[in-house]
Order: sequence, then structure tokens, then C-alpha cells
Amino acid sequence: MKKSIVVVLLLISKVTYSQNLDYEKLSQEFGRKHLSTLKEYLSIPCDANYKADILKNYTWVENQFKQRGFTARTLPTLTLPVLLLEKKSRNVMAPTLMFYYHSDGQPVKNSEWFQEDPFKPVLKQKDANGDWKEIPYSSLEGKIDPEWRIFGRASSDDKGPGVMLLAALDAMEASKLSPNYNLKIVVDFEEEKGSVSLPSLIKQYKSDLKSDLLLIFDGPAHASNLPTITFGARGISTVTLTTYGPYLPLHSGHYGNYIPNPALRMAKLLADMKDDEGRVTIPGFYEGIKLDDATRLKISTVPDDLAALNTRMGIKIPDQVGQNYQESLIYPSLNIRGLKSGEVEKLAATIIPNTAIAEIDIRIVKQSNPDSLLSKLKKYIVSKGFYITTEDPSPEERAKHNLICKFNTRPAYGAFSTEMQSKNGLWLEKAISKTTNAQVVKLPTMGGSVPISPFVSELGVEAVIIPTVNSDNNQHSANENLRLGNYFDGIKTMIGLLSERY
Amino acid sequence: MKKSIVVVLLLISKVTYSQNLDYEKLSQEFGRKHLSTLKEYLSIPCDANYKADILKNYTWVENQFKQRGFTARTLPTLTLPVLLLEKKSRNVMAPTLMFYYHSDGQPVKNSEWFQEDPFKPVLKQKDANGDWKEIPYSSLEGKIDPEWRIFGRASSDDKGPGVMLLAALDAMEASKLSPNYNLKIVVDFEEEKGSVSLPSLIKQYKSDLKSDLLLIFDGPAHASNLPTITFGARGISTVTLTTYGPYLPLHSGHYGNYIPNPALRMAKLLADMKDDEGRVTIPGFYEGIKLDDATRLKISTVPDDLAALNTRMGIKIPDQVGQNYQESLIYPSLNIRGLKSGEVEKLAATIIPNTAIAEIDIRIVKQSNPDSLLSKLKKYIVSKGFYITTEDPSPEERAKHNLICKFNTRPAYGAFSTEMQSKNGLWLEKAISKTTNAQVVKLPTMGGSVPISPFVSELGVEAVIIPTVNSDNNQHSANENLRLGNYFDGIKTMIGLLSERY
Repeated sequence: MKKSIVVVLLLISKVTYSQNLDYEKLSQEFGRKHLSTLKEYLSIPCDANYKADILKNYTWVENQFKQRGFTARTLPTLTLPVLLLEKKSRNVMAPTLMFYYHSDGQPVKNSEWFQEDPFKPVLKQKDANGDWKEIPYSSLEGKIDPEWRIFGRASSDDKGPGVMLLAALDAMEASKLSPNYNLKIVVDFEEEKGSVSLPSLIKQYKSDLKSDLLLIFDGPAHASNLPTITFGARGISTVTLTTYGPYLPLHSGHYGNYIPNPALRMAKLLADMKDDEGRVTIPGFYEGIKLDDATRLKISTVPDDLAALNTRMGIKIPDQVGQNYQESLIYPSLNIRGLKSGEVEKLAATIIPNTAIAEIDIRIVKQSNPDSLLSKLKKYIVSKGFYITTEDPSPEERAKHNLICKFNTRPAYGAFSTEMQSKNGLWLEKAISKTTNAQVVKLPTMGGSVPISPFVSELGVEAVIIPTVNSDNNQHSANENLRLGNYFDGIKTMIGLLSERY
Repeated sequence: MKKSIVVVLLLISKVTYSQNLDYEKLSQEFGRKHLSTLKEYLSIPCDANYKADILKNYTWVENQFKQRGFTARTLPTLTLPVLLLEKKSRNVMAPTLMFYYHSDGQPVKNSEWFQEDPFKPVLKQKDANGDWKEIPYSSLEGKIDPEWRIFGRASSDDKGPGVMLLAALDAMEASKLSPNYNLKIVVDFEEEKGSVSLPSLIKQYKSDLKSDLLLIFDGPAHASNLPTITFGARGISTVTLTTYGPYLPLHSGHYGNYIPNPALRMAKLLADMKDDEGRVTIPGFYEGIKLDDATRLKISTVPDDLAALNTRMGIKIPDQVGQNYQESLIYPSLNIRGLKSGEVEKLAATIIPNTAIAEIDIRIVKQSNPDSLLSKLKKYIVSKGFYITTEDPSPEERAKHNLICKFNTRPAYGAFSTEMQSKNGLWLEKAISKTTNAQVVKLPTMGGSVPISPFVSELGVEAVIIPTVNSDNNQHSANENLRLGNYFDGIKTMIGLLSERY
């Protein structure tokens, strides 16, 4: 009896790791099938500021994976739940791989989108002037140009990869294949809000989340759109700073020259945080960062075209934090992501505003400690003469302190980084390179952030990002889009990962 | 025949300048009558960005004055028309006084108002905690507390004074009195947008606008709410500055440390425009300003309570442009009235914004030349390394210049100032002081601006402001209001002006 089981397992195994798949054909067939799935998924609003919308996403994702034989568990948190999907290998000794992606998108401002609604996805192609023009979605029933794009919030960040995974799973099923490993999928519903509950959740469900390798389906592929493996990501902290003028906005004529202006106070505070070349001047901000020869070597293989990048972005001289783009990602960054005082344009009134608000994000690298970066920022603000609060100042505080800055921060998470030459790194390169004749681009780190460091530190698992979407996807701003060429190639990559023997 | 006409005129004259009016009773009676007029007028939206709304205001004002025997003429401009109302004295030799007020209000942001709609005026009284609480408008039918206020856009700036004038005209009519002068009233419908067409209009209709004295019914009375005469006002220029980052907002993780941030560039540009004490550092900005002993003497009689002002506004140390509040108004000012880059709070995204916009207003005094102040600001920006444009930069300009600033300005108008001891000044003091037992506060200048300097320079007329509304009226911001005590006192003041022999 025991023997026969072993034989059966071996037979199953043989089928399982068949390498003779037509990746191109499978990705085309199942990609096409799932273009309607993509449209349906993108039509569900997914700003994590709105819980009712997120719950619709949750149910949708849960149903999709249940239909494909996954078990689904809700991992509740104090904010929004995390969805844990699982499908066990028939081999009880099988290793476990865990995939991560997120189903929420950045906030939207409808008026900035060149389409009716960011949650009504549309198909566009570039016209002769280089402008994106809408074409009927039904054009997808005919021959598909890989340069066409689907425009809609979360199309690239990060619902697109979710749909690629569904298509790849169906391609495996149709080929009568299944992975030789147990598969866990963690779906996050508040990544764009910083996944604040994830660290405590990982602690709580440590045994349920145990796995041998964590793959993150998020972030952009290299600008060349070649298959990309990214071995780390920066972490992130966000801070909101508020400076104060009078209690209420005041007529700027009647009080100008007498009542201090909070926007000027904020400008002075922000201006000195960085030098004219974009380097942070806050003491100790870059502490511990060393760019060694090995890293420089890795970077030198990345096929970046910086002149083209600068022209595409419309800038003459980039910030001089690193000597080139990839080097700049090795350092922590400090960015003013939003700034507001009073109103501009049509709503502008001739007033002295009562407050100025600056939204800051700090990208953290492995060598930096998030708490220490924040306390350095705080120390800098104090050194500029500000009294720091976490609430709007009381009349007593206003009477006592001339310069007041409210400092609000949200939980931060750190960076992570995995060795390119590790066993997992080599396996990934093999799994992906077999699906394509092209070079696989290996990047030491992504500039952006994914809330992965808590997994790495708590579970001791190695984590690697498999980014698939086009880098010019307008991620985080209006008119986010997914290039169809990347969509089909992404499915190919995922079939490669699901079918490669771990 | 000739003789009898003279006799009749003398008889009329005798009635006309009767000084035995019960100002208190008249202002109460006709003020009460016109509280419904005020409500009706404030219910007409009046942001000059919306022409259709303004035309409703125009028709309303025209009808009100026509009903009171005024002739009405439309003075068309390239923007919005000006309304010229006229009522001639029966004495063909009579001098002419011209009144000015405006019927438009500042833009509104409904969400910031503590009432349903800024254009649905409500009555409020302060509760025990010092918060304004709505009470039924019908409370005005009973005993009226002078501390109650009507909340609504333009209640103080500047429709309230318009209604006070209607009430005062009716009080005169009921007393069978009329002014001994020809009366012209200029109603402006785009004052809050800078009255850009007024200078050319004054040139064009010079003879129609000729008059012996111009009185401006606008701006706040002294904080003591004593009757106030203000002998000048600062002029104003507004400038919009735009700095540039990438063409479109970019993911701050993927591009942070490489793509320059426009908000940082703007912060650096603004930070150095003023020192830590709020003094403008742009070379030559205060050129020509001398604070002489005569002015210091005038200022010393103003009953300001600066400690109370600072506490009310919630500031510890005021800007140090002048040695006190009134002195600060003698200097030109530079104010950041609006600042925006990316989004803050719920809409904040983790991006590098593509632009930063700063709205600046410069208040001009008599000694400063508006054009010269603007060119000094421009020179300062160039000295900071910026290339200046008036349009968004082209790809070629972006490739050529690292720092780019769009500089857009609207037509400016200058300051004006009239001698306190002039014949007109003394007449005004007499006309107003007879209506009250209180001190008349005489201010050398108002900090705010009224587009009066073109009248003064083109027509050679002396201009004086008769401000009536409460200084804490939230002018230009949300929750603008008019204190009823000021409303009734303002009517009294206007009856004084209409009944005093010029």
C-alpha cells in the first residue's frame, strides 16, 4: 500500500513538472479569456478609505479563488481584513510558496482622469500625435496590439497582476498541471494606506503564514519591459506636518505685515530639508548607507537609458543623491508628496491662511531604521525653532510658542533585500527565463515600497518581487494604465513560476 | 418769475439740511424694515467667476435704486458691466458726491461654512461656550440683540453696506429730506477679482463720473466698532507662481531621489522672500517708504488693543514690519494666499507632484509703484536661478532650463490716501459725529484694497472710505458675517452723510 502511494505520487510529479508548455500560446489564450475578468475587477472602486467598497473587492477575490479550488480564510485586523487563500499540493512533503498582492488602489480625483470614471476601465491606443485615444473595448475581440492599454485605477497597481495570476492558474488547470508546492496567497486590502495592521497580523498568524519563499506580484517591470526580478524594496514612513497662522483665515490686506503666514513658515521649514541638488540635509539621514563594489556591479548590468528617461519625464538635471537612477534607489528618500495652504486658482481668496499642511513620505532602505529617521526629522524641526505637537495647538500653546508644528506619523515598515545568487534567486531566474528568449533583468531593489519586511523578519522567509506591469503606468496618479503586452507577458511569467519544480 | 424760483429753492434747501433728525430711531426703524432686503440680497450667489450669477445681482441692484428714483446706466466693459446710478439735486448748482460699493463676494467653499449654504443667510448668536449657534431668522421680528450676526457670503463685504444705503435713503425719504448734492453711485461687480476693467472704464466715462468727493462704503470699521473714517487704502497686485517637476505626477518610491520635486523648489523660492520676522527681503521692496512723525502721531490716537488682538488671532509674536499694527499697514506687504502641490489628507497619494502653485498678493502703498514691485519680485526669482515663462514650459524649455517658474500676474491698482485735515475730511467728521456721542476713529489707511486709485488719479477727486462693518467679520474666508449693531450704526452714519449739507 505504502509503495503504491509513492508510485502514484511520482507519476503525478512527472506530470506536474512538465516543461514542454507553449507559454506564448497559453498566455494568449487565457489572457484573452480574462480581459473581461480584468474589466469586471477594475470596475469595483477600491480606495481603502471607503470600507464598503473594499468589502466588495474582498468578496470578488474570495469567489474567484474559491472557484479554483482554493480554501479561503479571513484574517481579521483592527482595520481591514486580510484574505489568506490556500491550495495544498497532493504531495504531503511539498514545500510552500506564498504569493502576495493587493487589491486596493490609490485615492482618485475624477476630474484629473481623461475618462468618465477611474472605475470604468477603458481601452486606449496612441494616436499619431502621441495622445491616448479611447477605442471600443470590443476591439479586444479582434487582433490585439500589445501597445494598447487598459486605463483605470489599480489596473497596474495592483489588480492587473491579480488577474494575471487567475489566468495563469486556469492555463495550468487546462494543461492538467499543478505546482509541486503548496500555494498560499495573501491578498492585502489596504496596501496603499500603509498596511498598518500587517505586522501584528503576521505575528498572530505566524504558523499559518509559514512558507519557503514569498513572491510579491507588485511594482513595475524594468522600463525595457523585459522580464524582471527585483530582489528588494524600500520601506516607507509617511508624516503629516502642519504649521499655524491665525485661528481662521484673515483678510490679507487688513492683516498682512502683522499676522504671520503659515505657508511661509512651512516653506522655510521644508526648504532647508534638502539642498539644491535634492540631497537631504537632515543630520544623519544617510547614516549607514554604503554603496559597495558588488552593488555597483549589479547596477551596471541594468539596461537603463537615463537620457531617454530624463526627456520622457521632462527634466534637465536629476537630483544628485546617487550617481545614476539605480544608485539613487539605494538611499533613503524624503519627498513632499502634498502641500496645501489656502486655495489656488479659481478658489484663491486674498487671505492669510490659518494653516499649511505638508505630506511627506520617507522611503527607507535596509540600513536605515524607520524610527530613527523619523526622530531625526523631528529633531531637525525642533532645531528650526518649532514646538512640536500631535494635536492642533491650544490657546495656551499658541500664547507660549511662536512657531508650532503638528507632527503626525503613521506606522512605518522597513525595507527588505534578498541575495540575487541565493538558491531562490537562481530558481526564479530559471522559472522565468524558460518562458522567454529575452534577457531577465535583475534589480537589487525597487524604489517603491511593499509591506514585506514584517514577513521577512517575523517568518524568516526570503522575499522577492516579480514585477510585471509597464513602468510608465502612471502608478499613484491619474490615468493609471496597464499595457496589454505586459499583461500577456506577466501571465507567461506566472505560468513559468507555477509550472517550475521548486 | 426768476425771483420766485430762487425763493422756492431756498425753501427746499431749508428742509433739506434739517439737522434735527432722530438718527437712532430712524436707523432702527428702517434697518428693521430692510432685514428682509438683506436676506434677499445675500441669497443671490455673487462669485464673479460666475457671470450668470452676477447678472442676477446686477438686475436686483438696478431695480432697488430705480424704485427710489435713481436713473441707471450700464457702463459695459470687456469683463463685467459697472452700474452707474444717479439722482440729481433740485439745485442745478449743487455739487456732486459719488458713492462706491461692490456687489460681488469672494469665492466660497461650502464645506468650510457652518451652515447649509453661504448663499442662504442665517442668524446666529453666541452661546455660553462662545460658539455661534443658529437661531430662527424670525427672531428679528422681536427685540434685536446688537451682538447677533447674519452669516452669509458678502454680508459684510460688501452687500451689507449696500443695504444700509437703501435703508438710509428710505429714512431720508420718510423724513421728506434729500441731499443737497447730486448723488452718483458706482456699483462694481468684480471687485474681488481685482476690478480689472475699472481703470479703462474711468478713462472712457471720465465726464460721467466727475464728482467733488468719492466715498467708499467698504472695509471694516475699527475693532472698537466706533464710527470710523479711513483716509486711504493699500493697492493690490496678485501673482501666480508655478514651479515644475516631471510632466505628470510620478510614484515617489520608484522616482524619489532622482526626479526633482516642484514643491521643494517652490518652498525654496518662497522661503527666502521674507525673513523670520516677516519682513520682505526682496531688494528695494520697501523703497520710498518713510514713516514720519505726523503719521506716527495720527497712529498714536487709534485705540488699538494689540494684546487682545494677538490673543484673539492666536499668535504670540506678530510680524515685525512695523512697530505696531497700524504702522505695519503703512508698508507694502507680500503674502502667500494659496499654496498647492499634489494633494493632502484623504486625497494624498505617494507621488512626486508635477507642479507646485503659489498664489501671492502684494499690497501696495502710495509710495510704491505696482509695476516696479512686480519687476523686483521677478528679478528676485531670476536671481534664484529660475527661468521665467508665462506659459507652461515646452519640452525644449524643459531640456534647456533646470529651474522654471511660470509668472502670471493680473492688472494691479495702486494705493490712495487723502489728507485727514482737508475740507472733505472735516466735513465727513462733522456729518458722522453728529449722529453719535462716541469718538470718531480716523485711520490713515486701511490694510485692504479698494480699486479707487484710478478714480483719484483720473478724476482728480478726493476719496475717503466710510467703513461700517465689524472687523471680525471673517471677510474673505468662510463664515463671513455682519454684526447687527454695526448694521444699524452704519445706517445711522449714512443718514448723517445724506443729510449733512455739503
